[in-house]
Amino acid sequence: MSRLINFSAGPATLPLPALEHAQRELLDHEGTGISMLEHSHRGAAYQKVHDECKALLVELLDVPDTHAVLFMQGGASAQFALVPMNLLGPGQSADYVNTGTWSKKAIGEAKIVGQVRVAGTGEVNGAFTRIPSQSELKLDPNAAYVHITSNNTIMGTQYHAYPDTGAVPLVADMSSDILCRPVDVSKFGLIYAGAQKNLGPAGITVVIVRKDLAERSPDTIPSIFRYRTILEGDSLQNTIPTFPVYMVREVLRWVKAQGGAPAMKRRNEEKAALLYDLIDADPDFFRCPVEKGSRSIMTPVVRLPSEALEKKAIAEALAAGFAGIKGHRSVGGLRISIYNAVEPSDVAKFVEFLKAFRAAN
Amino acid sequence: MSRLINFSAGPATLPLPALEHAQRELLDHEGTGISMLEHSHRGAAYQKVHDECKALLVELLDVPDTHAVLFMQGGASAQFALVPMNLLGPGQSADYVNTGTWSKKAIGEAKIVGQVRVAGTGEVNGAFTRIPSQSELKLDPNAAYVHITSNNTIMGTQYHAYPDTGAVPLVADMSSDILCRPVDVSKFGLIYAGAQKNLGPAGITVVIVRKDLAERSPDTIPSIFRYRTILEGDSLQNTIPTFPVYMVREVLRWVKAQGGAPAMKRRNEEKAALLYDLIDADPDFFRCPVEKGSRSIMTPVVRLPSEALEKKAIAEALAAGFAGIKGHRSVGGLRISIYNAVEPSDVAKFVEFLKAFRAAN
Repeated sequence: MSRLINFSAGPATLPLPALEHAQRELLDHEGTGISMLEHSHRGAAYQKVHDECKALLVELLDVPDTHAVLFMQGGASAQFALVPMNLLGPGQSADYVNTGTWSKKAIGEAKIVGQVRVAGTGEVNGAFTRIPSQSELKLDPNAAYVHITSNNTIMGTQYHAYPDTGAVPLVADMSSDILCRPVDVSKFGLIYAGAQKNLGPAGITVVIVRKDLAERSPDTIPSIFRYRTILEGDSLQNTIPTFPVYMVREVLRWVKAQGGAPAMKRRNEEKAALLYDLIDADPDFFRCPVEKGSRSIMTPVVRLPSEALEKKAIAEALAAGFAGIKGHRSVGGLRISIYNAVEPSDVAKFVEFLKAFRAAN
Repeated sequence: MSRLINFSAGPATLPLPALEHAQRELLDHEGTGISMLEHSHRGAAYQKVHDECKALLVELLDVPDTHAVLFMQGGASAQFALVPMNLLGPGQSADYVNTGTWSKKAIGEAKIVGQVRVAGTGEVNGAFTRIPSQSELKLDPNAAYVHITSNNTIMGTQYHAYPDTGAVPLVADMSSDILCRPVDVSKFGLIYAGAQKNLGPAGITVVIVRKDLAERSPDTIPSIFRYRTILEGDSLQNTIPTFPVYMVREVLRWVKAQGGAPAMKRRNEEKAALLYDLIDADPDFFRCPVEKGSRSIMTPVVRLPSEALEKKAIAEALAAGFAGIKGHRSVGGLRISIYNAVEPSDVAKFVEFLKAFRAAN
């Protein structure tokens, strides 16, 4: 077996110990004689996984008692709709900060549900190359909430300081950077994240919500779409995707063993620095379109002098064992997703590849 | 390793060859150097799995060109809301046949969305022990659709002939009996099923919808909740739970190797007959509360002379290697879920256990 070095934007590479453990017990979970793919969501074996997974999220993200961890389905795309369905009442308006593709999708879904204001943008000359600063935001003090996209996979931008929204709840799509560093959860009304980048495989969504906000879910929306229902049912009101939760637990055990969120921050900053240092040292060949203070430590993007060279680099990288570096079709270029599970030594190898590629071209 | 004989109501036992194959390639899917837990939903490796899974469903269920196979999230519980959100327009009314717990939940969610009529019931003296016949249904010829629950896991009842609803689309929750036998899909407007009983692990929902119905999804609901969006995006409009789809493909490959839906029917009827023959041969000890013509070949239920004996039987069965036979807490008794993957030889072993238990008590 020869595993590739996988820089895919998500679903993404998982820690090898998590995969190996899952493989070992795939036919027989902890000697129960039943696979975790088969265990009832109402049984003790799954309940233990569920509780540990939730407890690890609380511990690693330092989630305060005011907030609850929910497991949901449908990914961030479902949350684009569920956030306004739950939190945007009739006659209210919600503020959205537009930092590119995923923000736009969130805005689009919210507009179907209720009234939306765009309170800020990361657009410069038609490209989303930066995160707007606090002073640039035109926040409505009466907004139902303020919505941001914490990391923008396609654009390669990331918030490094979150907006102060005062008494207005801050809602963040953290799908592509949750647990990449410590975060003060108490500052957020709601955080949501599809698991398939930093937390596990596709098929489960983590929602961290202030309990008093969850309680506001209106009775006019289907009960299965209310945060209140999920909170009251401890995410077990109906059949939960048991195996994806189990895999998230495996990944979180690995994160904890590495040293938790502070260790992830050091590790991710180290990986990002390897790439950005190379880019900045050779501006005639490499170019990062993102403003320095807005650069992502999760999904750096880089352009080469021509599309032909980019195409060549992607093909040669794959031949050398590096997968998933093609930029999103909407922007082109290269994107090197260096989520938590990507090893710094693998990024170092890729930097050596890029140096050799640069020397040869 | 000693695997239990698992009669759980769902998530449920999976074919051993499917689990073994998944285990073998868990770290490296088909020599790609990447696990199916990590592969991008936009890549060729997953696309192949996706296409084969869909093609197998079309083949095994003989899905006509008028209908499309969709993969969604949220299980039947989400469909309870999505069916009326998509198909129940303002001023319209939908007919629901109430055959117990799951029908009631579907009715409850639909009432939040629009106008609902109960067009028939399986209730007799406070218990849902039968499926109403065609002549008992009071169908509204102007209904937006008629909704039924094909198999009722908690009650142990199952439709053996589906209602004729004329020009009104028939919608069926087949979560607990899809692919247990051949079905004429052309008679249905929409079929939905959570995978975790007959198709795979928890975390993916199969929807088979008449394309012209899917096209009716209104623009007033969030786009992610429209059947039209899922149809147009081939279920890949956002990140799909890749690994659950892969497991469904593994299960469907096994179903095909067994001889497809006709073979499943023979196999399931054989298993059900083993249980019902025992019950009917010994009415002083065993009692099935369900009317004979409505008995399920998926989830037979049986009562013993006392709750104390039932408790004893459940404990002794587990000690003998039979898991998951406790009836739902709302009705008590025993429930022996004999989904497709349960081996007839294992049901025969359980019947021997019951005979010995009966002899000893």
